[in-house]
Amino acid sequence: MIVLGIDPGTAALGYGVIELQAGRLRAIDFGCLVTSADLPLGERLVAIHARVAGLISDHAPVLIGVERLFFSRNVQTAFAVGQARGVVLLAAAQAQIPVREATPNEVKLAVAGSGSADKLQVQQMVAAILGLKDLPEPDDAADALAMAICVAHRERPAAAGDAPVDREKAGILDRSSIEPITRGRTPYERAVREALARERR
Amino acid sequence: MIVLGIDPGTAALGYGVIELQAGRLRAIDFGCLVTSADLPLGERLVAIHARVAGLISDHAPVLIGVERLFFSRNVQTAFAVGQARGVVLLAAAQAQIPVREATPNEVKLAVAGSGSADKLQVQQMVAAILGLKDLPEPDDAADALAMAICVAHRERPAAAGDAPVDREKAGILDRSSIEPITRGRTPYERAVREALARERR
Repeated sequence: MIVLGIDPGTAALGYGVIELQAGRLRAIDFGCLVTSADLPLGERLVAIHARVAGLISDHAPVLIGVERLFFSRNVQTAFAVGQARGVVLLAAAQAQIPVREATPNEVKLAVAGSGSADKLQVQQMVAAILGLKDLPEPDDAADALAMAICVAHRERPAAAGDAPVDREKAGILDRSSIEPITRGRTPYERAVREALARERR
Repeated sequence: MIVLGIDPGTAALGYGVIELQAGRLRAIDFGCLVTSADLPLGERLVAIHARVAGLISDHAPVLIGVERLFFSRNVQTAFAVGQARGVVLLAAAQAQIPVREATPNEVKLAVAGSGSADKLQVQQMVAAILGLKDLPEPDDAADALAMAICVAHRERPAAAGDAPVDREKAGILDRSSIEPITRGRTPYERAVREALARERR
């Protein structure tokens, strides 16, 4: 199962493609499309639409997770984010890929166990869950990967024989800076946390 | 010169196509695309994108006027309007048609001489300027035609020999309900108002 996560924005559009196979998640493709403020808005939206359509065509995700916002610093930001979100949702619907939405807090809760996790905690948990050697950069790409993980969690049925996340590849991660996790929200998250706890012992 | 005006919204997208020829404006096509709230958002955005792309392909406008908002009842409305606006701007940029923006107040000022004109005044002035027998309905279509008129005004150079708007065809319009107009903002608007004033004498 391949899932595409999108953190929509006009200036920076984060994207992350993950694959869930035999209970393990791995990152396939992630990054951040930055469009210049010097370009006309329409051209920036064309670039965003083309990138999302290209990711769909390249990776054939079965689901697309798109950040849903309820708050905004101001109305102008809400209009701008809405515009980018509109073309992302359009590209998904044109390719007939179902969209799942989650708020930033829901994503943080699913990935880092707390709706108020900071950017670094999200990056660290995303790296741990996906077995990445380095923290995913920039923030927008990490957020998009976190969105994809959140959506994948929600969709997959809890399987008793699921292997925990491959922690070998996360060797250089500074685990000491990961906040202690007291309870899991899903069987998958619990497995991740148990694996982290085992490593700390 | 053909101009397409768009009043973007997810629930109702107003559109209006006008032609400026020999100093006269006429309506070519106008209406309102209503998409059901029962449809997934992505499908509604696909319908909006397809309608705008279709209008561009059918009428080959040289300019597209799209409402620009600075205020919103709430942030959720701003996100929703932004999403519809995003796919409209995308369709325009994909067809490489330049976009002009105006706020609702700027449109009302250009068409009805006052930024605080009400819906009926805008409909009446749009009907008068375009020589429509009936008031354009619904509001969203009238607003989109007003946007197209506003954009056409701004773009065209003031020509001394321009004929005033054809008022013959506006016969059934109840002119008595049009607020007195004290000053024009552009040579074109002044011509419209002078024509109205002549008819009242």
